Amino acid sequence: MKIVIIGGVAAGTNAAVRARRNSEDAEIVIYDRDVDVAHAGFATHYAVGGRVDSMEELVPYDAQWFKDIYNIDVKTQHEVVKINHDEKTVIVKDLQTGKEVADQYDSLIFANGTVFGTPPVFRDKSFSNVFRIKTVQLGRELQNFINEEKPKSAVVIGAGYIGLGVSEQLTNAGLNVRTLDFLKYPMAQLDHDISTYIADILEENGVTFHGNEGVTELQENGEYLESVTTSLGNEFKADMYIVATGVRPNTELAESIGVELGETRAIKVNEKMQTNLKDVYAVGDIAEAFHAITKKPIYLPLATTASKMGRIAGDVITGGDLTFKGILGTSVVRLFGNTIAGTGMTEELARQDGFEPVVLTSVQSDHLSFMGGKDMIIKAVAHPETERLLGFQIIGPEGVERRIDVLATAMTANMKASELFDIDLAFTPPVSTPKDPVMYTGMALTNAIKNSPLITAKEMYRCIEDKDDITIIDVRDAEAYENEHLENAINIPLKEVRGRLGELDPNSRIAIYCNSGRTSYTAQRILLNRGFKEVYNLTGGLMSFKNLLHDLDNMSKMNG
Amino acid sequence: MKIVIIGGVAAGTNAAVRARRNSEDAEIVIYDRDVDVAHAGFATHYAVGGRVDSMEELVPYDAQWFKDIYNIDVKTQHEVVKINHDEKTVIVKDLQTGKEVADQYDSLIFANGTVFGTPPVFRDKSFSNVFRIKTVQLGRELQNFINEEKPKSAVVIGAGYIGLGVSEQLTNAGLNVRTLDFLKYPMAQLDHDISTYIADILEENGVTFHGNEGVTELQENGEYLESVTTSLGNEFKADMYIVATGVRPNTELAESIGVELGETRAIKVNEKMQTNLKDVYAVGDIAEAFHAITKKPIYLPLATTASKMGRIAGDVITGGDLTFKGILGTSVVRLFGNTIAGTGMTEELARQDGFEPVVLTSVQSDHLSFMGGKDMIIKAVAHPETERLLGFQIIGPEGVERRIDVLATAMTANMKASELFDIDLAFTPPVSTPKDPVMYTGMALTNAIKNSPLITAKEMYRCIEDKDDITIIDVRDAEAYENEHLENAINIPLKEVRGRLGELDPNSRIAIYCNSGRTSYTAQRILLNRGFKEVYNLTGGLMSFKNLLHDLDNMSKMNG
Repeated sequence: MKIVIIGGVAAGTNAAVRARRNSEDAEIVIYDRDVDVAHAGFATHYAVGGRVDSMEELVPYDAQWFKDIYNIDVKTQHEVVKINHDEKTVIVKDLQTGKEVADQYDSLIFANGTVFGTPPVFRDKSFSNVFRIKTVQLGRELQNFINEEKPKSAVVIGAGYIGLGVSEQLTNAGLNVRTLDFLKYPMAQLDHDISTYIADILEENGVTFHGNEGVTELQENGEYLESVTTSLGNEFKADMYIVATGVRPNTELAESIGVELGETRAIKVNEKMQTNLKDVYAVGDIAEAFHAITKKPIYLPLATTASKMGRIAGDVITGGDLTFKGILGTSVVRLFGNTIAGTGMTEELARQDGFEPVVLTSVQSDHLSFMGGKDMIIKAVAHPETERLLGFQIIGPEGVERRIDVLATAMTANMKASELFDIDLAFTPPVSTPKDPVMYTGMALTNAIKNSPLITAKEMYRCIEDKDDITIIDVRDAEAYENEHLENAINIPLKEVRGRLGELDPNSRIAIYCNSGRTSYTAQRILLNRGFKEVYNLTGGLMSFKNLLHDLDNMSKMNG
Repeated sequence: MKIVIIGGVAAGTNAAVRARRNSEDAEIVIYDRDVDVAHAGFATHYAVGGRVDSMEELVPYDAQWFKDIYNIDVKTQHEVVKINHDEKTVIVKDLQTGKEVADQYDSLIFANGTVFGTPPVFRDKSFSNVFRIKTVQLGRELQNFINEEKPKSAVVIGAGYIGLGVSEQLTNAGLNVRTLDFLKYPMAQLDHDISTYIADILEENGVTFHGNEGVTELQENGEYLESVTTSLGNEFKADMYIVATGVRPNTELAESIGVELGETRAIKVNEKMQTNLKDVYAVGDIAEAFHAITKKPIYLPLATTASKMGRIAGDVITGGDLTFKGILGTSVVRLFGNTIAGTGMTEELARQDGFEPVVLTSVQSDHLSFMGGKDMIIKAVAHPETERLLGFQIIGPEGVERRIDVLATAMTANMKASELFDIDLAFTPPVSTPKDPVMYTGMALTNAIKNSPLITAKEMYRCIEDKDDITIIDVRDAEAYENEHLENAINIPLKEVRGRLGELDPNSRIAIYCNSGRTSYTAQRILLNRGFKEVYNLTGGLMSFKNLLHDLDNMSKMNG
């Protein structure tokens, strides 16, 4: 059996190694047009920023190592230029000599990743001071430029996963950084009420962020880019530019032999990573995944999924029974000491998919606050009828990835919201709280579903806008209320609620709020237990409401 | 309805608050003989060591707060001295005035925690320089002593959860600390091959640890303890002493009315926290839990379980349907920058319970090593026939609690070993690895169960002791082999394995090892794929084997 793998990064090498672990007989060849194999290209900006000692640490293995350890033939700087699938042959071009040779396969794996998604204005252009982030080889070019030209400023175009990481690392390397995105906030895959905070983090750490602003024009000076003009008419000048506007699957070669694409324009594969063509597989950033909850196609090129898909294809080809179970779209960014992570569906996506979700926003301490524990904001989305967990987004300085991973595990196992309370999580004062944020989230979701309905900031805003007949109660103390409160809100501090129920109509619609939603929950329970018919708790409290007003650039709904 | 709760720490206050959230009608009274309510007594040593600014931060609430917010009556320094359950009355003594009054209840909750388990030699004695750790009030006494007497040295008796925490914090406070335990290693609930490392951490951080050494004699000087003599005849002198020899359930009062105890000597409760007596509940450190895997009774007094049990009892009494789902025995200690955690069953417990488990020890990096990721040691125990996850123990400087929490979640959801690979965990270079330690653990367990059997260090040691007919192959390079290797091991570096198969008998029993078990797995697969009949991989490699020899005080099985 001969396996030819096109592409030798996470997906391709994992496929090769798994195949070898199952079979000593298989002949395994990897072709990659890059100079490196199995490189950690996803970390090149960390080498630029000094978090990694040297760019070369990102290439711990070479072709000889794969030969010695796994008897796998790795041919770097070799590009598969043509495939004849009827004859099961490939034509491979040696990029150093220009020579082309034919090779044969029994199974073929497309693991040749992505090509850059380039904004129109940059298409077919190349500048000595414009860089892209993907491979270690591109990282070396960037590193050399910085070492030699000592740029003092940079414009980063695109504020996704890579754009944010690069913005942080260039800042750490001492550059003045300006980051643009044509969308309003960074990390467009998150809900607005979370991504607003990311823009704040950038600004607080010296990165100037411009949302809703794409690059529309370039001021060129030969091979040097002088400045860019944006859709808002601003001209931004910098010593260097990073175009971090994402990637798309590199499907051209696969399409040339009739490999079918999915609706995301990545290669359509089944749970065994098989394409529509017999003996042809696709794995990693070139392949389409599916969402573990909705089962719908999803394209999210990440190293975790790539290595998983590679392992599955290598296993299947050599007789194994591994299958792909889909992804939750779990993603995480570390940004100036903060972590922003999400798993599963956002509120927006859940609504698009026809769920009418319960949405909880809460503020939780990573560990006990008297031990120095810092707060994180957790947004949870669940399905009220089935109690199914739909998705989570968390932002904060500590313990974010822990909770996201626990919640991703719970979702993978199809746990219900109420079951989060049952998990026996680790507790000791420097590590967590006796009711871990995960447990608390489960409890609060369950309460909201069962008998303590929540209202989101957006819904509350609409009520106010539409002049709904709703009584809004601020249960914080009088001083906090005087300082600022929602338009039309009346003040009944929690301590006084039991004594002042007579002032309220038990048949009216009531919404209660405090700073974060905890104190108001206590008040909500009092009213509901006393027979009030319709009482809502503003989830995320004033924090969420002010965040929304900030997003809407409209602080007029606040008095005080 | 009137609910009387005896004990106002985690369990009691959670019961009270949950009852109030369900009902405004219930009259709720908490009696506690302590001066504080809802205190974080579990953290007093952190106030002593300076991790918490002031001991008073551990008492954020008082009786007035509970009255104002929850309309709960909290009577501190009030001891329930007698109960007449036929009449549903309690006699309560005001510890400040000595006066006794009667009260009445519909439901009674025992939440009165623990009493100290005192070593015989300390029984009925009290010294001005001997302290115990439990309540904030005891913490204040310890703090006062340290402030006034400025002790320079301490002996900590007991190296469990509390003993370790105190040893660390007194060291941080500048004292010379000597820690004793009558068992060989700290944290007796963990397997020896993990707890050995804890002893090393203590020593590396300046704490002198003495295992297998209990206190047998006291040298007294009035109310001052001069020194202690141990079971090994050593005399240890210090300015102060901490007795951290654990607690037992405080069941005397409950037993006086016929409340039944379980086999752990804690109060027997059902999943609704009900005792054998109608309308009598027990929650927290006084109550027996059950193990979520074995369903057998287990006693593990921890704040997480206490607050969980309290919430359930408060819910049930007021008509709710919460039930207790058992615990996994998850526990965690932070010790001089290291974290030691466990969940589920140890290997020892699994074997005692009749499982013949597959046992995996591996070394995993928290995040990418070129990003500064540090290694953790993960011991995993699973059931081979069903692939059921039985338990995990992890030790390392980073990310330990994250993996334990994910694994506890997976166990709670009854995930199989192979399903750990399917979880979509968060990845970014500063946070994790593309194959997270959890995924890797699942993959390695599955491989071990399916077709790549492991041998533990203990089994390997027995093979050598018994002079079993087994060929031991060291697949590290020649230099490492020359430096040290297992007695009788032959050296075939991994690179040479494919070329030297002819030297080996495919029908013989073979065990392969490297440093940690990863390289040897590759070699194992080559042999098995080439038709070798019986090939084992030494799990945890030389690291685990040397750890065992160290434990056995017998390095003679190593050559080189």
